[in-house]
Amino acid sequence: MTTVKPESIEKLRHVSVATLATALYKRGLRNQTIQDVRPLSQKGRNMVGPAFTLRYMPAREDRNTLAEFRNPKHPQRHAVETCPPGAVLVMDSRKDARAASAGDILITRLMMRGAEGVVTDGGFRDAMRIAELELPAYHSRPSSPTNLTINEAIDINVPIGCGDAPVFPGDIVVGDDDSVIIVPAHLADEIADEANEMTAYEDFVVEQVRAGKTIIGLYPPTDESNLETFAKWREVNGR
Amino acid sequence: MTTVKPESIEKLRHVSVATLATALYKRGLRNQTIQDVRPLSQKGRNMVGPAFTLRYMPAREDRNTLAEFRNPKHPQRHAVETCPPGAVLVMDSRKDARAASAGDILITRLMMRGAEGVVTDGGFRDAMRIAELELPAYHSRPSSPTNLTINEAIDINVPIGCGDAPVFPGDIVVGDDDSVIIVPAHLADEIADEANEMTAYEDFVVEQVRAGKTIIGLYPPTDESNLETFAKWREVNGR
Amino acid sequence: MTTVKPESIEKLRHVSVATLATALYKRGLRNQTIQDVRPLSQKGRNMVGPAFTLRYMPAREDRNTLAEFRNPKHPQRHAVETCPPGAVLVMDSRKDARAASAGDILITRLMMRGAEGVVTDGGFRDAMRIAELELPAYHSRPSSPTNLTINEAIDINVPIGCGDAPVFPGDIVVGDDDSVIIVPAHLADEIADEANEMTAYEDFVVEQVRAGKTIIGLYPPTDESNLETFAKWREVNGR
Amino acid sequence: MTTVKPESIEKLRHVSVATLATALYKRGLRNQTIQDVRPLSQKGRNMVGPAFTLRYMPAREDRNTLAEFRNPKHPQRHAVETCPPGAVLVMDSRKDARAASAGDILITRLMMRGAEGVVTDGGFRDAMRIAELELPAYHSRPSSPTNLTINEAIDINVPIGCGDAPVFPGDIVVGDDDSVIIVPAHLADEIADEANEMTAYEDFVVEQVRAGKTIIGLYPPTDESNLETFAKWREVNGR
Amino acid sequence: MTTVKPESIEKLRHVSVATLATALYKRGLRNQTIQDVRPLSQKGRNMVGPAFTLRYMPAREDRNTLAEFRNPKHPQRHAVETCPPGAVLVMDSRKDARAASAGDILITRLMMRGAEGVVTDGGFRDAMRIAELELPAYHSRPSSPTNLTINEAIDINVPIGCGDAPVFPGDIVVGDDDSVIIVPAHLADEIADEANEMTAYEDFVVEQVRAGKTIIGLYPPTDESNLETFAKWREVNGR
Amino acid sequence: MTTVKPESIEKLRHVSVATLATALYKRGLRNQTIQDVRPLSQKGRNMVGPAFTLRYMPAREDRNTLAEFRNPKHPQRHAVETCPPGAVLVMDSRKDARAASAGDILITRLMMRGAEGVVTDGGFRDAMRIAELELPAYHSRPSSPTNLTINEAIDINVPIGCGDAPVFPGDIVVGDDDSVIIVPAHLADEIADEANEMTAYEDFVVEQVRAGKTIIGLYPPTDESNLETFAKWREVNGR
Repeated sequence: MTTVKPESIEKLRHVSVATLATALYKRGLRNQTIQDVRPLSQKGRNMVGPAFTLRYMPAREDRNTLAEFRNPKHPQRHAVETCPPGAVLVMDSRKDARAASAGDILITRLMMRGAEGVVTDGGFRDAMRIAELELPAYHSRPSSPTNLTINEAIDINVPIGCGDAPVFPGDIVVGDDDSVIIVPAHLADEIADEANEMTAYEDFVVEQVRAGKTIIGLYPPTDESNLETFAKWREVNGR
Repeated sequence: MTTVKPESIEKLRHVSVATLATALYKRGLRNQTIQDVRPLSQKGRNMVGPAFTLRYMPAREDRNTLAEFRNPKHPQRHAVETCPPGAVLVMDSRKDARAASAGDILITRLMMRGAEGVVTDGGFRDAMRIAELELPAYHSRPSSPTNLTINEAIDINVPIGCGDAPVFPGDIVVGDDDSVIIVPAHLADEIADEANEMTAYEDFVVEQVRAGKTIIGLYPPTDESNLETFAKWREVNGR
Repeated sequence: MTTVKPESIEKLRHVSVATLATALYKRGLRNQTIQDVRPLSQKGRNMVGPAFTLRYMPAREDRNTLAEFRNPKHPQRHAVETCPPGAVLVMDSRKDARAASAGDILITRLMMRGAEGVVTDGGFRDAMRIAELELPAYHSRPSSPTNLTINEAIDINVPIGCGDAPVFPGDIVVGDDDSVIIVPAHLADEIADEANEMTAYEDFVVEQVRAGKTIIGLYPPTDESNLETFAKWREVNGR
Repeated sequence: MTTVKPESIEKLRHVSVATLATALYKRGLRNQTIQDVRPLSQKGRNMVGPAFTLRYMPAREDRNTLAEFRNPKHPQRHAVETCPPGAVLVMDSRKDARAASAGDILITRLMMRGAEGVVTDGGFRDAMRIAELELPAYHSRPSSPTNLTINEAIDINVPIGCGDAPVFPGDIVVGDDDSVIIVPAHLADEIADEANEMTAYEDFVVEQVRAGKTIIGLYPPTDESNLETFAKWREVNGR
Repeated sequence: MTTVKPESIEKLRHVSVATLATALYKRGLRNQTIQDVRPLSQKGRNMVGPAFTLRYMPAREDRNTLAEFRNPKHPQRHAVETCPPGAVLVMDSRKDARAASAGDILITRLMMRGAEGVVTDGGFRDAMRIAELELPAYHSRPSSPTNLTINEAIDINVPIGCGDAPVFPGDIVVGDDDSVIIVPAHLADEIADEANEMTAYEDFVVEQVRAGKTIIGLYPPTDESNLETFAKWREVNGR
Repeated sequence: MTTVKPESIEKLRHVSVATLATALYKRGLRNQTIQDVRPLSQKGRNMVGPAFTLRYMPAREDRNTLAEFRNPKHPQRHAVETCPPGAVLVMDSRKDARAASAGDILITRLMMRGAEGVVTDGGFRDAMRIAELELPAYHSRPSSPTNLTINEAIDINVPIGCGDAPVFPGDIVVGDDDSVIIVPAHLADEIADEANEMTAYEDFVVEQVRAGKTIIGLYPPTDESNLETFAKWREVNGR
C-alpha cells in the first residue's frame, strides 16, 4: 500500500473538499466526491485518514436474523473492531438509506478505538446521538431500521463504491463541513501540496474580493499583478 | 379498537425509534418506520400517540379551487377539527412534497386542540413557523404551494400508507429526533415493555463502550458475564 | 421590461412564499415555487429582487477545462460581474447537484457588487462559507466538484427553468426561510398588494387560533363576524 | 352516479388519448392522463369503460401471509369477482412496481366476467401471458413477486390515484396503444362529442400534411380557407 | 458449494418466475426477484443455471482507459472466459445503466463458451444484436457508452447484489419472458419440486377459469371439491 | 459552422452508436450518448444528420393556453417549419416526459419537409402513429398530454442539453436501433473514419468469435497474428 506522508495528512486538515475536487479535476479525476452525503453535525475541522472499507450487499432474510449479530466475526462488527486507529471507516451501503448502516453503539466503539471518522452512503440510526460524538460522521439521512432489513455486511477492506465515488483501501478520505472526497493514495502527497498552495491563493482572493476587487484577472490570476500582490500577502501573512 | 395501556405510552416516551424498529423486526415487521421523513425541529422528547389519519389523492382542478376551503366539512379542515386530543395526525400525501400537506394556521389549531403531533410524507408550508411550535411535526421537506395544487384530502381515519409504512387508525405513532415509527396497536404493550428493557441494556452498553469495552460479547451479550454486570448496573442505577 | 413599484418590493419583504403561492394560485399559476431548493442559512428576512438569469447546459469535456475560467467573458464569471445591484441571480443548473453551480469566491463577489441574493437548482460548493455571508443563497444541497464536471454556463439573462419553475428575466424573486417563488413581473404589483392583505388576515387568524378559536368560519372567513373582528383588529394593530 | 350515454362510449372508442387530453386541457384539467403506464400488448383498439377501483396500501407482514388469500372477501379477489361487466378495474398500487398488482389467473377471471380492461400503476406478474389475453391491460412494468410482499388491497371502489391521475368510481377510462386517460363522468358526453369532432379535423390535417401542406394556418386552422376545405372533406368522407 | 439435482434444473425450466417468487415467499424470502430487469428479446423458454458473478465498482478515470482491455486478466474479459458452461453470468452494475455492462462481442463469446445466459442490472450496448443471439440476456435498458465510463469490473464470483436481489455464486438463476429470480442453492431442489406442483395446479386453475369458474374456493383451493377435480385432471393430463 | 464531409455522413450510416461512443471516449468525451432515449420503432438503419435544436422551459399557465398555437411563430411549430432537410430536430424537454414534446401531425410535417429524424428527452404523443412513419424518432416514453401542460418552447437552434448530453447546432446526430449519440461537428470527419475502421475490425472479431476463437488477444488485438488474419479478411471481404 502506498505510504502517505504525515505532513500531507496535516496539510489536508486545512484545505476544503472543494479545493481538493478541483486539484483532482486537473488530473482528470471527476468523480472522487462522495455524492449526496453530509455531516451529521458540523465539526469545524476536517476528517482526514486512510480508508478502511466495509461492503454491504442486499440482505437475504434467512441470513439476516438478529441471531447473526451473535457471531463475533460478523463483518459489520468485525469492521468496527479492526478498523485501524486514524482510519476512516467507509461503507458501501448501495446508496440505500432505507435501513441503517450502523448505530450509536458501534460508532461510539469505533471512536473509542481511535478511528478518525465514518462515512456511509446509506443512513445512520441514533443519528441524533452520533451527531453529538466527537467523531466526524457522514451519511445520507437518518434511518432507524436495523441494517439487517436491507443490507448484509459481506466484505471488509475491498475496493468499493460510496456515493458513486470509487474507494480503494488506503485512499485518503477527507471530509469537511460540506462533503467528503476520496484522494487516491498515490496522489495524496502531491494533491496535499497543491491544495495547500491553492488554499493560500483562495484565502488571498476572498480577502481581495471582500475589499471590493473584481474576480476578473484575479481568479484565476490572468492579471499578473495579482500574483505580485499575492506574493507580498504571503510574506505578510506568513503563508 | 385495541386499547393500549397508559403505562405503555409512557414507556414509549423514553425509547428510541431505532430500538422500536429492532423490537418490531424480531416479530417479522420490517417496514414500520416512515421513510424519508424528519422533524421540522428537534424537540429532545418523543412524540407518542394513537394515529388519526388523513388520506390525500391527486387533485383534479375543478374540485380543488380555493372556494373548497369554504366547506366546513372539507376533509383537511375537518381532520384538524376532529383529531382527538393526544392523537397524532398522520397524512398520506402520496410521498409528494411538491405541494403542502398543511400550513402553520392548521397546525397551530391542531396543537391548540390538544393533538400530540403531526406527520406527513409530503411537506409543510410555513415550515419555519411550524418548527417553532411546541407540537412535534415531521415531514419530507418545506413546500410552499397550497395542497390544492397537487393533493385533495379525501378520507379521514382510514388505513393509509405514510412514507411506505402501513398506518391503521389507532396504531401507536412514535417519533424521536431522528424519525417516526408505527407500532401496531395490538403489539404496543409488549413492544413498549420490550423496548424499555432493550433501552436499559443499550444505555448500559454505551456506558461500557465509553469505558473502553469491546462490543464483542457485549452487544449482543454472548459473553454471559456481561449480563451479570448489567444486573448489578440496573440495581445501582435503579432501572 | 415591466416596471415594478418600489413599494411592491417593500411589501414583498413582509409576506411569506406560501402566501404568494396562494395568491398566484388564485390566478391559475400553480408552478411558480422553485421545487426542492432551500436556504443555506435562515436569514429571518426575505430576499426580494428582479431575476437575472444564468443558463447551464451539460458540459462537454473539451470545452470545459480549467483554462476556460481564464476567459473574462466566461458566462459564469460574466454573470457574476454583470448582475445588477438589487437583482437575484437565478441559475438553471438542470436540477443536477452533482457539481457546483458556484463557490464562495463568486458568491462573495456577487454580494460585494450589491446583488440581493442567489438561487440555483443545483448545489453550491463551499456551502458552509456561503451560509455565513449576509447574502441570502438557496440551493438543493452542498456540492463540492467544480461546475465544469457537469455543467457549462452558456447563456445570460434568457428565460430559464429553475426547480421546474419558469423564470423570465425581470420576474420578481422572493425567498423566505422556507423556499423561493417567482412572481411574474406584470403581476408583481397586484400580487404584492393582495399578499399584504392576506398576511394581515393570516396574522389575525393565527392570533385567534392561539386564543382557542376554531378555524371553521375563520379560515376562510365564511362566518362574517370574523371579518368584523378582523376590521377592529386592524385598527388596533395599525395594519 | 352520473350516467354516460352509450353513444359517448362508442365515440370514445375512436379517438386517441392524446386528443382527449387536449379536450380536457381546454377545461382546465391537466393531470388526467395516467403517467408512466403502458399496454402489455397493443390491441389496435381502445379500451373504454367506467372505472371500478381498488386501493392498495403498504403491506404489513403479519396481515399479508399467503393464508390471507383463503379469505373469499380479500379485497383483491373480491374486486375481481365484483367488477361490473364493461367496467375497467383501476388499481392504485402506489406507483410501486416492486411487487405484482395481480397475475394471469385473476386477470383471466376478470376477462371471463366481462370486464373491459385493467390498469395498475404498479406491475403485473405473468405479464407475458396477460399480454396474450383479449382483455386490454396496462401497467408500469412486469413484476413477478406476489403483491403481498409490498401492497395490501384495502378498499374497493373509493376515489384513488393511479399514476398521479385522480380516479373516481364511474369516471370513464380510455386506453389506446399509447396510454390511459380518466374522463370525469360528468364531462364524458361533451368530451366524447368534442373529441370526435377534433379527431375528424386531425384526420383531415394528417391527410393534408401528407399531401405536402404546411401546418401554419392549418393546425390550428387560423387560415379560414382550411375550414372550407375541411367542410368539403367531411362531406366526401362522410364524417 | 451445494449441489443441485439435474432434475431440479429441468423442472425449473417449466415454471414461471412468478410461481418461484411465491414459493420463496412462503419461506420468508421476499427479495429474490431482480428488480427492473427485462429480457432483450423473449425466448419462449426459461434460462436456468447456477450464478457466476461479476462485480463492478465506480470507475476511476486513471484506472479505466481503453488500454486496460489489453490486460488478459481484466475481470470483465476474464469473467467471460471463465464462466462455466451452463452457468449464468450475473453482473452487479450498481443499477447504473448510463454505461454498458458488456457488448455483443463479449456476449457472443460467452454464448460460444456454453454459458446459459447473462443478466445485468445495468444495460448492454449493441442490444439490438444481443437480442438476436440464442443466448438469453436480461438488462435494464440499452446503453451504448463503454463500461469504462462509469464502472470498473473488480471482482469475480463473489456475493453481489443485482437489481436489489442478493446473489451468491452457485445460486440458481431462473429467467422467463418477464423477469429473473435467484433461488438460493440450498433451497433449489425443494423449490423446484414445489413450484412444479404449483404450476400443475395453476395450469388447472387457468383452464377452469377459462371455462367460467370463479376463483373463490378455487385459487387457493378452499373448496375441497376443487382438489378432487384437480386430482382427476392430473390423471387425465398425465401431470 | 464546421462543414462535415458527405462521405463522413455516409460512413456514419454504417457504424453503431456503441462504436462511436468508444471513438469519442478515446478523445476524452464521455457524455455524448443521449441517456434514456429509445427509438419508437426500430428502423434497421441509422439516422444521421446535423442537429437543429429546440429548447423547452417550464410552462407558465398564462403563457401556454391552446390559443398560443395560433401564433405562426410559436417556436415549436416554427422549428418544425424551419428545420432544414437532412437535419435532425433535437428537443431539450428537460427530461420531463409527463407532457408531449410533439405529436404525429408535427412529426409528419417534419418528415414531409425532409428532416432526417427527431429526438426528444421527453415523450411523444400519438407514439403508435409516429412509430409507423418512415422518419426515425426517439424519445423516453409515450406521453399523451399536450406539451403546454409542462413545457413551453422558447428557443430555436441554441446549444441545449438532451438526455444529459450537450448538443450544439450542427453537431452530427447519429441514432441506431439502440440509442442516439452526438458527434461534435469538428470531430465528425475523423470520428467517421475511425469508427468505420473499428467497425470493420469488430465485424471480423464477431466472425472469429462465432467460429470459436477466444477474445483474449483478439479484442483488443494484443496478439499480433490477429491483425494479420484481419488484413487477409479485409482483402477477401473487400473492406
